[in-house]
Parts: sequence; structure tokens; C-alpha cells
Amino acid sequence: MEIAVLGTGMVGQSLASRLHELGYHVTLGTRDVATTRERLNGALHPEITLATLPDATTKADLVILAVQGASALSTLAAAGPRALDDKIIIDITNPLDFSDGFPATLFVKDTDSLGEQIQAEFPTARVVKTLNTLTADLMVHPELVSGGDHTIFVSGNDAEAKAIVVTLLSTLGHRHIIDLGDISTARGSEMLMPMWMRLMTAMGTTMFQFKVVQ
Amino acid sequence: MEIAVLGTGMVGQSLASRLHELGYHVTLGTRDVATTRERLNGALHPEITLATLPDATTKADLVILAVQGASALSTLAAAGPRALDDKIIIDITNPLDFSDGFPATLFVKDTDSLGEQIQAEFPTARVVKTLNTLTADLMVHPELVSGGDHTIFVSGNDAEAKAIVVTLLSTLGHRHIIDLGDISTARGSEMLMPMWMRLMTAMGTTMFQFKVVQ
Repeated sequence: MEIAVLGTGMVGQSLASRLHELGYHVTLGTRDVATTRERLNGALHPEITLATLPDATTKADLVILAVQGASALSTLAAAGPRALDDKIIIDITNPLDFSDGFPATLFVKDTDSLGEQIQAEFPTARVVKTLNTLTADLMVHPELVSGGDHTIFVSGNDAEAKAIVVTLLSTLGHRHIIDLGDISTARGSEMLMPMWMRLMTAMGTTMFQFKVVQ
Repeated sequence: MEIAVLGTGMVGQSLASRLHELGYHVTLGTRDVATTRERLNGALHPEITLATLPDATTKADLVILAVQGASALSTLAAAGPRALDDKIIIDITNPLDFSDGFPATLFVKDTDSLGEQIQAEFPTARVVKTLNTLTADLMVHPELVSGGDHTIFVSGNDAEAKAIVVTLLSTLGHRHIIDLGDISTARGSEMLMPMWMRLMTAMGTTMFQFKVVQ
């Protein structure tokens, strides 16, 4: 499977590296290839290709959106709506607004979500919201806390897309994956962020996770 | 310890009954004693007294606010601000707005919380937000899921009040209690509700809980 990771920050790098290790063909999409290559300076495995957003997206079977929430829609627009036709977008963004410092507030919430905005803006893509409720290290190495015994969530309108994403998540080591329902349920997972940020402060670490017990 | 439970719905009844079983003196405060007595029709132990909101509050050492979020401020106002002077208020309300059906939206969130509004309106009381992230049965019998191995949260400005509340929560059987910080951290726990409601739908039960693992 060809995977495009859009976003070259810590989250994008972590996902690209781990998915490459797991045997996927990964391209890292960026607005400016030359600048990103200089900044990353060989930090990533040479088999992880750098490409423009349209090039990375066009050849991918599955796109992972790993940018700041504020850049989510513009990044996909730059990738090109046509290139997103029928593609699965794993949306791991959160609508965080840091303009008043930390903890951030949410620039969309409660009656709408960033996941829904992405799906509405790119209606022919198949958006699956997931991985937005934990730190990057745990996205790719869930075993690092509690032996991987914790929960992630998926939201999306397309059952086949969710099934493919769940398989990918399982490959990353996620064992407890709850399907919340359609993309509007992304409101639930995005609104975990205010608690996540306060737990980070209270516990003094990002290495924690939510588990749903029954 | 004299405890006033304000609110005679399922949550208030559950808490009053269990705290009575555990040996506390419990008064159930209501706007209309005669009507409530008729409605409850002997469902509660006869040692659990019914009283008006001011009477219940005045004689209590600790007040548990167990009403709908929309009635939180008016209930405390009816209890009488003087009666709340220096008292601990355990605020288990959530700012749920069901006017557009289920799942509810939140009538305050993100940059404010109901816990903060209560503390601001009654500045001489000591508000501790807790128990607002789980169903009533699990508030009083946490052992009913996962042997009690899950997490609740406290938020409040007064360290002594939080310590007293943590002791009470421990008596109810809660073993993992995270102090999130001052009352503004109630934004985090109140904003868990959108996820809680979607989990309820996805799992088909209210008998689940969040656990924070590290």
C-alpha cells in the first residue's frame, strides 16, 4: 500500500518512519520539498521519499493528514481535490487554537468538528478521524504505556475505509479500537483535547492514554 | 458529616442512598418537599430526610449538587448564598443542552465551564467538580465495571476541600482519582461529555468508564 503522510513535523515524521519500518511505501508530502529536505537533514530513512503535496497524494492509496489543525483544509486544498477522489484520508488533526497560549482552545467544536469540515470540503474523499487523542510516540508505539492496553477511536462515514484503517491501526499495535460511528462523532474525540491537555499538565507527561473499560 | 444532596432525580437518589448506607447523615434537598415525597413514595430509606433547599443546605457540612446543568445556578441561588458560605459544593453537573435532541450539545464550554460559573456566582463556597464523567450507578458502585479499575477527576481552587472530597470518593470505592488543578480544569471534564454520549451509543450501555493509563 502506498501511503502519503502530509505534514513533516514530529507527528508526520513518527508515522512515516514507523510505517516504513512496517513495510509500507511511504511518501512524505510537503509544500516545499527543498526546504523540508534541508530541515530534516537525513533524519528519515532514505527510502522515505519527499514530494510535493500533489505528487505525494496522487500516487497514494491512503493519505494521512498530520498537520496543525489550522492548516488542515489548506493542506488538502494544496494537495488537490482531484487527487483525493475516493481516497482514504486518515485525519489525525485537532482544531487547536494556541492564540491565547496553553491550554489551547478549540476553533471548532460541539456542533461541528474539523473532521466534518474536511469531509464536507472534500466530499469524494473518505475521511476517517483517528489517532487524534494521543501523543505521537504512542500512535506508533502503543506498547510504550500499559503494554498497549488502551483505546483509540475511529469516526467516518465509509465502512470499508474504516475497516482498512482499523487494519492499519492494528498493524501499528493498537488492540482496542472503538468505532464511534459516522464522521460527526469526531466531535467527541476532538473534544477530548481539553482534558488531554489538562492531564498532561497534571501528570507532567504526554506518555499517557485513555482506556475505555466496560 | 452532614451531607445535603440537592436534586431528587436518579443521580441524587443514588448518591443519597449509598452515602446513607456508608453511614453519613444525608438530607435530600428539593424545591417542593410535599411533591417530592409523594413522587418518591418511600423509595428511599426513611432515615434520609427530605427538606427544602435552604434547610438542607444550612445544616450540611458538604453539599452535593445533583441537578440538571441548566438548573445548577438557580438551585444554589434557591438554597441561599449565605447558607453556602465556606461550604464544600461537590458539583457533578454537566452543561448539557438537549434542545436539539441527543447527543446533547454543551451550553458552556472551552473558554468557560459550569464549574467556574458556579464558583464565580458563589465565591465564598468551595466548589469541587467531580463525578460528572460517569453514570450514576458507577458513581456509587465503581466496582461494577472492571473491578473499579478506572479513573475519576477532581477540579477546584481549595486544596483542603479537594482533600475532603477525595476521601469521600475513596469511601465510595474510587481508587484512581486525578487532581486536574483549579476549577478552570472543569472545562476538561465537562468536555468529556460529547465523547461519553457517543461511546454510550456505540457501546449500547452506560456501564463503561474512562481509565487514564500511564
